[in-house]
Amino acid sequence: MPGDAIAGYRLDELAERFGLTLRGDPTQRVLGVGTLAEASSQQLAFMANTRYAAQLRGTRAAAVVLGADAAAQCPVPALIGADPYLAYARIAALFEHAPAAVPGIHASAVIEPGADVDATASIGAQCFVAATARIAAGAVLGPQCMVGPDCAVGAQTRLVARVTLALRVRLGQRVLVHPGAVLGGDGFGLAWAGDHWEKVPQLGGVRVGDDCEIGANTTIDRGALDDTVLEDDVRLDNQIQIAHNVHIGAHTALAGCAAVAGSARIGRHCLIGGSAGVLGHLEVCDRVTITAMTLVTHSIREPGEYSSGTPLQNNRDWRRNAVRLKQLDTLARRIAALEKGHPK
Amino acid sequence: MPGDAIAGYRLDELAERFGLTLRGDPTQRVLGVGTLAEASSQQLAFMANTRYAAQLRGTRAAAVVLGADAAAQCPVPALIGADPYLAYARIAALFEHAPAAVPGIHASAVIEPGADVDATASIGAQCFVAATARIAAGAVLGPQCMVGPDCAVGAQTRLVARVTLALRVRLGQRVLVHPGAVLGGDGFGLAWAGDHWEKVPQLGGVRVGDDCEIGANTTIDRGALDDTVLEDDVRLDNQIQIAHNVHIGAHTALAGCAAVAGSARIGRHCLIGGSAGVLGHLEVCDRVTITAMTLVTHSIREPGEYSSGTPLQNNRDWRRNAVRLKQLDTLARRIAALEKGHPK
Amino acid sequence: MPGDAIAGYRLDELAERFGLTLRGDPTQRVLGVGTLAEASSQQLAFMANTRYAAQLRGTRAAAVVLGADAAAQCPVPALIGADPYLAYARIAALFEHAPAAVPGIHASAVIEPGADVDATASIGAQCFVAATARIAAGAVLGPQCMVGPDCAVGAQTRLVARVTLALRVRLGQRVLVHPGAVLGGDGFGLAWAGDHWEKVPQLGGVRVGDDCEIGANTTIDRGALDDTVLEDDVRLDNQIQIAHNVHIGAHTALAGCAAVAGSARIGRHCLIGGSAGVLGHLEVCDRVTITAMTLVTHSIREPGEYSSGTPLQNNRDWRRNAVRLKQLDTLARRIAALEKGHPK
Repeated sequence: MPGDAIAGYRLDELAERFGLTLRGDPTQRVLGVGTLAEASSQQLAFMANTRYAAQLRGTRAAAVVLGADAAAQCPVPALIGADPYLAYARIAALFEHAPAAVPGIHASAVIEPGADVDATASIGAQCFVAATARIAAGAVLGPQCMVGPDCAVGAQTRLVARVTLALRVRLGQRVLVHPGAVLGGDGFGLAWAGDHWEKVPQLGGVRVGDDCEIGANTTIDRGALDDTVLEDDVRLDNQIQIAHNVHIGAHTALAGCAAVAGSARIGRHCLIGGSAGVLGHLEVCDRVTITAMTLVTHSIREPGEYSSGTPLQNNRDWRRNAVRLKQLDTLARRIAALEKGHPK
Repeated sequence: MPGDAIAGYRLDELAERFGLTLRGDPTQRVLGVGTLAEASSQQLAFMANTRYAAQLRGTRAAAVVLGADAAAQCPVPALIGADPYLAYARIAALFEHAPAAVPGIHASAVIEPGADVDATASIGAQCFVAATARIAAGAVLGPQCMVGPDCAVGAQTRLVARVTLALRVRLGQRVLVHPGAVLGGDGFGLAWAGDHWEKVPQLGGVRVGDDCEIGANTTIDRGALDDTVLEDDVRLDNQIQIAHNVHIGAHTALAGCAAVAGSARIGRHCLIGGSAGVLGHLEVCDRVTITAMTLVTHSIREPGEYSSGTPLQNNRDWRRNAVRLKQLDTLARRIAALEKGHPK
Repeated sequence: MPGDAIAGYRLDELAERFGLTLRGDPTQRVLGVGTLAEASSQQLAFMANTRYAAQLRGTRAAAVVLGADAAAQCPVPALIGADPYLAYARIAALFEHAPAAVPGIHASAVIEPGADVDATASIGAQCFVAATARIAAGAVLGPQCMVGPDCAVGAQTRLVARVTLALRVRLGQRVLVHPGAVLGGDGFGLAWAGDHWEKVPQLGGVRVGDDCEIGANTTIDRGALDDTVLEDDVRLDNQIQIAHNVHIGAHTALAGCAAVAGSARIGRHCLIGGSAGVLGHLEVCDRVTITAMTLVTHSIREPGEYSSGTPLQNNRDWRRNAVRLKQLDTLARRIAALEKGHPK
């Protein structure tokens, strides 16, 4: 009997389905997933990092997904694979009970006449869809979303709830957008007019590729002239700010609270740490990692890992050293003088 | 005649009620509160910090709440206590006119069949409550809130307006959540699959204890397996990001724009400054203070105050010193060479 | 025939209207605007920065707005002015097709009895307006906005969509507020009561002057006693946090993710960079520039540019230098010892 989320799955079935090597009772059944520390004897756990080796030895899980190097320490049945985290992710997906969205338009939604909403799309309670918007097949809008003028939502794309697409936003297929995200707001363009600011019209849009994910309360402004662009499979965590005309390459991921200023161009396969910043008009090449809270102040042309900032210290030590930071140029000159035999 | 917010309160009444020592006319009545600089002769002011001593001397307030050490300088009646700020807070609460929420469900709210809404709860205009949600006695949802699947709102808890509880969020009693907050969004879990990202299911929830406060546009993701947890009396300011599986101990407060990465564990009675960050999987023990914009890059085992970052300087000096930062290791080696008598 | 957005505009017409000097065919017509690199032969481009000189030489635009110094390199007709960016902004505004808001109240909006909504205001779908709110002539509320108790929206002010004015917020005229912004939330005021936090009532409001702009998901808390104030023409980008009782002077602009702590006072004509922070109770005088991700830790009394932070480096170099940062005070003492001829 093949498994399902209710009946659970046999270990041999999981091993075959996900290309894993089973060590232990093939008929053992798992009904869910859990952590090494908390999983019950009916749940599957995983270990992707050897720092959890102590937890592995004490686990009461039904089975553990792990790498070959750790299998010997596993006190329970093991599902062994080259990439245990990925295998775990795929197994866990079997147990995710996402409520099926019902095609159709909730009675409380406001759909302006002229809006092009596919019959297989699901428009939740209290959504607003503008006259010039398009919602493709299988798209799902959770409650309280807004799809504004000249916006398009691609097939199978899902706006979880209370997402705002303000103006000229085109989302690809299978995009996932979390609550509170605002896409297509005005870029921050100002021209100084001698005694006041004048607004620079923001005439571009936002273009998001397929399979992107956009976190809660993240903002992506539309471009001033050309579009702000996310290529395919870009992953944005929560509270990220993407300014106008930024371009982010495919498969790049940004952690929470990162910010990218106007017209910066970030390559493919980059990883940007939490609360990091990238200044405007810079270029970051492919395969660059930026550590958390780093400020990127110049373009990066070589793949690799980059950082700025200072180490954490207790406040007394930090204060003592921080005073010296303000003297650093002077200290360097004093070293040079000493080297010349002329101490000041 | 006992006071009320309209008739005001006599100073002797306030002194007795809040355990303060009165110096001055006991029959003096106050009708409200104000700052030392702006309070009218019918308003009560307070001084909790001696830096405002000059304002104290010039105040025209009806009376001032302050500590015994400052009482001699007070030109008007004084209410003297050991903790003047706390006493002020309690007196000020007498003058807060929070409109009473009316029990019942606004006609424009959408309550899915099956939702368990207590008859004494107040559900505001344009709210959405999912079929599997529970709203306890005396809870208040302001306009435009959403309580999603498997979410529970505790007794006397208040969602001010436009709050989103996305999925599997349980709020305790007397919790206060401000507009734009998003709780229970997906944690940011990705597994690399050779040529694309795969999403790691986020199967946990969010558990918020009693008496917590959660600021505007703050985000708290639900856990990957276990829950993301805030213990009782945790206080979050605006625009804070709490990633999946974070655990925050009771009475800890985080200032605006702070961010805590996945699975970090913060103790009780901590104070985290504005825009500070805590990296993932770290532990911060009880009674730790982190100064603003500090990045916590390793676990903290000792109570105390911790910092990172560099001092503010004018840009010209900063640039001069910043150049030297990139030479710092070399400078240190040059010092060592000098000490050995072998300057390079 | 005078131009319009459909028929386009003749270059001589634009030159006269905006005080520019035309070099080239006066009868040439432009139908829109574009970048130097992408503008078609019917679009106008601009160059405000000589770093785009190479793009200028290759442009196929119908004409370019630029400064006198660059005009000689322009291969197409030129509109020459002292401030090409400002001139471009004004010309581009001719081509912005903002849909005209229709006066009146959408059927799905909830307007509490007693609300004072001008007949010429436009209230969009699913808005909520409280009984004690006022909406002035020509104001526009896009979909899903909320104007809470004791809030006032000035004439010609526009809330783009899903804006929340929580409590006691007064917006001036011609203010523009982007989606997700929350104004008038509780300031973060807590008093420690021995074994728990008590909330300090937030009795003030938020006062926003004329011609301000407030970005997406930005938060501005209301004051504890007095108001939080933005003077006229203050410009806030996205995801900015303004705490209670902050005062920001006219014409000051803050870039994305900046944060200002409670009771800080920022002068006029300041520029605050992205992700920068200003600690509470500080004063920053007029005409100060703060660079990105700088933390302002003391008051600034002199106009100028200020910075903190460390330079970007590759991670290996950064680590090597960062270790030395923790030794900096010791290094300085070793230099002093060497200077005295007593190396340790």
